[in-house]
Amino acid sequence: MKNKKPLKIGVVGCGYWGPNLIRNFRQQNNCVMQICCDQDEDRLKRMKELYPEVETTKDYHELVEAGIDAVALATPVSTHYPLGMEFLKAGKHVFIEKPITRSSEEGLALIRQAKENNRILMVGHTFEYTAAVNKIKSIIDSGELGDIIYISSTRVNLGLLQNDINVIWDLAPHDISIISYLLEKNPVSVNAQGRSHYGKEHEEVAMTTMNYDNGTIAFLHTSWLDPNKIRKMVFVGSKKMLVYDDISPNEKIKIFDKGIEKPDYYDNFGEFQFSYRYGDIYIPKIDEYEALGAECGHFLDSINNNTTPRSDGWSGLRVVKIIEAANKSLRLQGLSVPVEYENEAR
Amino acid sequence: MKNKKPLKIGVVGCGYWGPNLIRNFRQQNNCVMQICCDQDEDRLKRMKELYPEVETTKDYHELVEAGIDAVALATPVSTHYPLGMEFLKAGKHVFIEKPITRSSEEGLALIRQAKENNRILMVGHTFEYTAAVNKIKSIIDSGELGDIIYISSTRVNLGLLQNDINVIWDLAPHDISIISYLLEKNPVSVNAQGRSHYGKEHEEVAMTTMNYDNGTIAFLHTSWLDPNKIRKMVFVGSKKMLVYDDISPNEKIKIFDKGIEKPDYYDNFGEFQFSYRYGDIYIPKIDEYEALGAECGHFLDSINNNTTPRSDGWSGLRVVKIIEAANKSLRLQGLSVPVEYENEAR
Amino acid sequence: MKNKKPLKIGVVGCGYWGPNLIRNFRQQNNCVMQICCDQDEDRLKRMKELYPEVETTKDYHELVEAGIDAVALATPVSTHYPLGMEFLKAGKHVFIEKPITRSSEEGLALIRQAKENNRILMVGHTFEYTAAVNKIKSIIDSGELGDIIYISSTRVNLGLLQNDINVIWDLAPHDISIISYLLEKNPVSVNAQGRSHYGKEHEEVAMTTMNYDNGTIAFLHTSWLDPNKIRKMVFVGSKKMLVYDDISPNEKIKIFDKGIEKPDYYDNFGEFQFSYRYGDIYIPKIDEYEALGAECGHFLDSINNNTTPRSDGWSGLRVVKIIEAANKSLRLQGLSVPVEYENEAR
Amino acid sequence: MKNKKPLKIGVVGCGYWGPNLIRNFRQQNNCVMQICCDQDEDRLKRMKELYPEVETTKDYHELVEAGIDAVALATPVSTHYPLGMEFLKAGKHVFIEKPITRSSEEGLALIRQAKENNRILMVGHTFEYTAAVNKIKSIIDSGELGDIIYISSTRVNLGLLQNDINVIWDLAPHDISIISYLLEKNPVSVNAQGRSHYGKEHEEVAMTTMNYDNGTIAFLHTSWLDPNKIRKMVFVGSKKMLVYDDISPNEKIKIFDKGIEKPDYYDNFGEFQFSYRYGDIYIPKIDEYEALGAECGHFLDSINNNTTPRSDGWSGLRVVKIIEAANKSLRLQGLSVPVEYENEAR
Repeated sequence: MKNKKPLKIGVVGCGYWGPNLIRNFRQQNNCVMQICCDQDEDRLKRMKELYPEVETTKDYHELVEAGIDAVALATPVSTHYPLGMEFLKAGKHVFIEKPITRSSEEGLALIRQAKENNRILMVGHTFEYTAAVNKIKSIIDSGELGDIIYISSTRVNLGLLQNDINVIWDLAPHDISIISYLLEKNPVSVNAQGRSHYGKEHEEVAMTTMNYDNGTIAFLHTSWLDPNKIRKMVFVGSKKMLVYDDISPNEKIKIFDKGIEKPDYYDNFGEFQFSYRYGDIYIPKIDEYEALGAECGHFLDSINNNTTPRSDGWSGLRVVKIIEAANKSLRLQGLSVPVEYENEAR
Repeated sequence: MKNKKPLKIGVVGCGYWGPNLIRNFRQQNNCVMQICCDQDEDRLKRMKELYPEVETTKDYHELVEAGIDAVALATPVSTHYPLGMEFLKAGKHVFIEKPITRSSEEGLALIRQAKENNRILMVGHTFEYTAAVNKIKSIIDSGELGDIIYISSTRVNLGLLQNDINVIWDLAPHDISIISYLLEKNPVSVNAQGRSHYGKEHEEVAMTTMNYDNGTIAFLHTSWLDPNKIRKMVFVGSKKMLVYDDISPNEKIKIFDKGIEKPDYYDNFGEFQFSYRYGDIYIPKIDEYEALGAECGHFLDSINNNTTPRSDGWSGLRVVKIIEAANKSLRLQGLSVPVEYENEAR
Repeated sequence: MKNKKPLKIGVVGCGYWGPNLIRNFRQQNNCVMQICCDQDEDRLKRMKELYPEVETTKDYHELVEAGIDAVALATPVSTHYPLGMEFLKAGKHVFIEKPITRSSEEGLALIRQAKENNRILMVGHTFEYTAAVNKIKSIIDSGELGDIIYISSTRVNLGLLQNDINVIWDLAPHDISIISYLLEKNPVSVNAQGRSHYGKEHEEVAMTTMNYDNGTIAFLHTSWLDPNKIRKMVFVGSKKMLVYDDISPNEKIKIFDKGIEKPDYYDNFGEFQFSYRYGDIYIPKIDEYEALGAECGHFLDSINNNTTPRSDGWSGLRVVKIIEAANKSLRLQGLSVPVEYENEAR
Repeated sequence: MKNKKPLKIGVVGCGYWGPNLIRNFRQQNNCVMQICCDQDEDRLKRMKELYPEVETTKDYHELVEAGIDAVALATPVSTHYPLGMEFLKAGKHVFIEKPITRSSEEGLALIRQAKENNRILMVGHTFEYTAAVNKIKSIIDSGELGDIIYISSTRVNLGLLQNDINVIWDLAPHDISIISYLLEKNPVSVNAQGRSHYGKEHEEVAMTTMNYDNGTIAFLHTSWLDPNKIRKMVFVGSKKMLVYDDISPNEKIKIFDKGIEKPDYYDNFGEFQFSYRYGDIYIPKIDEYEALGAECGHFLDSINNNTTPRSDGWSGLRVVKIIEAANKSLRLQGLSVPVEYENEAR
């Protein structure tokens, strides 16, 4: 397709998520997964076992010296800004795992630096690259659901507590980026409530509400304390409803025909079972692929074609602004907190 | 068991729920299901077909003349207070479907009238009489779960919209009465958010948060707009977790051993599946029965023994106070609203 | 609809199933549920409590004297023939719970007696009257599935062991009557295997295979020993597949588009998850009702209009012949046993 | 642990399963994944991309010249015997994917050749190395279930049709090896029935019954035509029951307390729901790992320690003998076919 020479990629952070990036960049065409960096020698040794041809280093400065074109950061949130800024200033294209930064000021600074250096800045909102979310987008865009009037998302599981951030910072970026991508709208205000139990400052459970200027409401339930892993979003439209269950292997998306009806009177307990009514249900086939591969490919394409990535810096910034507002609401006992966006954003 | 003469029962309201009351009172021992009342002649005709021995009337005053001992009200919420007051003043024991009244003032007035006339006043918090909820109560009381630190309840379905009340008034009484019964504590403040869509003043979806003085938090998700019927409550304790799924035929209660663990590093996508960890799960056998029968029997026993029912007027009043606070918060964009309880309550 | 005078109904047997018949006949139009019979006085007393207007008796001869038009038998299988014969000879229309008799000779004799007396003989193949099975029939008849090439049915649960018959006699009549109703074909041969454990002569688990002359094969798994209750049938057609899960409240019927594809090669364990492929899935809305009510109504209509019921004596006989062949195969270690049908049957 | 020098491994076949073997051998300690072979150059090129340090060849003779210690065969069944024999004669230890050979004669010949050359011969009965099956084995061995009286296995899915073998050869080796491993017994006779539809000689669906001398019976349902992927085994013991659902992420094993009870009489349809009774259910935690890694490690350990592998040649031969009997029964319309085992087997 292209005659451009292969892009050389560096990855910083080989903990939980970094190895997935390394594996996926290795499988991209016209790309060399050249060097990875971590402060833990055991992790580097492990990477070397798995991928002997990839260079390893404990010092991220070596990535610049290695002549890479682009870097992907899979490091703790607090390092996203300093590392991202340094690589942008060194003229590298930068991919950062979500959330893009720990504050909107940091996010805005990265965006401006990328613009100044004419480099690609992309955030890892992986769900925007899944087959399921893109199927939902095409369904919503077709008008089949009508206007979206209510969204409910449940993203809960047991454990994986982060030390440096609360559950909203950890899990809600997924919901927020998905919803912003699908609705192409941003909330005007946010409420949140939660609690932290294990003697920590960071909330392990939280309920966030996003309010839109057209009356649409979205509930985001995030938790590290629930025994069952749930990844479910309900989109209620004025015409039809859609349920997206990311855990289900073969029924990820269900579309429900409207069927609100008052049941007839019933005379005994047995008939009571029949009183709720639904219309037909339709489960479209989804052509699955690994979303991270699509995301890595999109990053490379954006560099090669000098185009704005779907999940660009502004997208990352919007998510951070909403999360900041949610956290402010948390401290104000659930008070509604408005969210304002930059004029210069698309 | 008792030599007392059979109690004569009247039922007002033969719409959705009333026939269940009639059927269950008919099956109680030492009780005569004597007369039922509805303004719709078709409903009365239907009751006559089903239960030829039960008298019917369109005028509820006839119930007093029929010499009943007690009345059960399954009528719209707005009628609970005037009807309840009239029957109490006429010296009848009164059972009222939830919520007990449309305001706390009305509820308190009924409680005082019942006390003055020395009559039993009971509210139909049916779930307090289910096998499942009582099993959960015995598990919590045994200390097996440790301290309850977080509760999440989902009570959503499609349709059955009420004309006169919003979804919190309709569905949340179940959650609130269950949680109050289980925790033996009441929230100190409440937040709520929701939206109404179909050109109506009453919210069809709402998220209510109950905050307790010990830091416990409870999220109550209620909706008439969700395509799937869900009746699920999660109780997270400091030791174990319990999930109560009222829809599940054979696995209503699941107890999860704690198992929060950081997974080892994983090197590829496949191993990622193994990274969430749980302990053993235990599903106790529940000896099922129809809760409404137990509830009707408890009402009769309370009358015969002159004892305070489990779900007495104060219990009904607490639920109304919490719902009032939730609705106040709804009007205040989710602001935290404190709840205060009467000193004279137990 | 009709000016005919109400039919008077008697029910023999008030154990497990009889009360359902009584309740449903009571709710039919133009019908008087007049008298019920059981040898157990406690059961009769219970019926009297529930339905005070229904007469009760321990002596089934009284039904004849009570002037009934028709009788429904919900008694042990061994009594179906003598009771059915006696009521037919007395000029009564007869409804018999499945299986119609304990042998094909008995079944044939009842058919001939009914013909001689010009009375309606109907067998209680209830599933032929369910909304779900009739929806499936309309789907198959439309040709949407193509030719049915393979059927698999699972009808297993824990307990409810019968003392007088094995699990094939108890459960397989449902599968066989459903399949015969849907395919409008009967198997040419049958195999069966099973085992009995609890020191009894009657098998508690069995696998029956029905072979059709066009090559269609049907597996029927019946068991009283399985921990989970399953009621599931899979119909694989040459074009599409259909799954009928009778336990599912809202997804009883699922239609699967064909999608057999060889997956691409995969390179690691994670991608392996994506290798099975399906097409779209469609879940049609079913307008539920209580099947037994429809069945009772069909019996009354057949009498009033002097028409052949859907599940007539020949239908009952076919099921018995197939079950006899299955039991013969059981004794012959799974040998294939041919089934022959009467020429005089429709 | 060991001072032995690393074993050098060759893999023949880089299609569906071979890459999993390569990946897992690469991750073993004290092992060099040296060379892989396939007749398709694209597959070899792909392997080279993924694992640049692994040699590739189209000619399997080069594996011998490459000085490997052991070979793993992931090739079509018909090649297992000639390839296995050649590598054994060349003094290599041999791992063969299931089924070990296409006939019992071939299997026996391989066993004898391995014995003569004192080499390890192991078959890839992967499930014997899963955490779940080993958990079940420890539960059965503890006596908790009592005697196993009945087993039912369902291994069905859509597609993945093999060109060279029928569905029994493809899927039943899993069931048979699991059951033989768990029961430490082999069936004395086998029945099978099935059908082939798509103009082919190989059955796409089949029901196999294994009969044991103590009366235990096992039903094996295998299919390539079912729309839902199911991997479920039910073990009914004289004391408790166990369900193994290999698809379930967190509830793979459920143990059910016995609870067969006759329900009380019920009076209406609603109460009917309560009539099936179960005891407590217990879901033990399973410490998951990738079974194939354990299997590869076991092969290496067997070589290093010169010990008999769990799934040795005799184990592979038993599975082939049972499948041969099942196929013979298929041709004889379900007739019971006895299975005889070699005296020299363990």
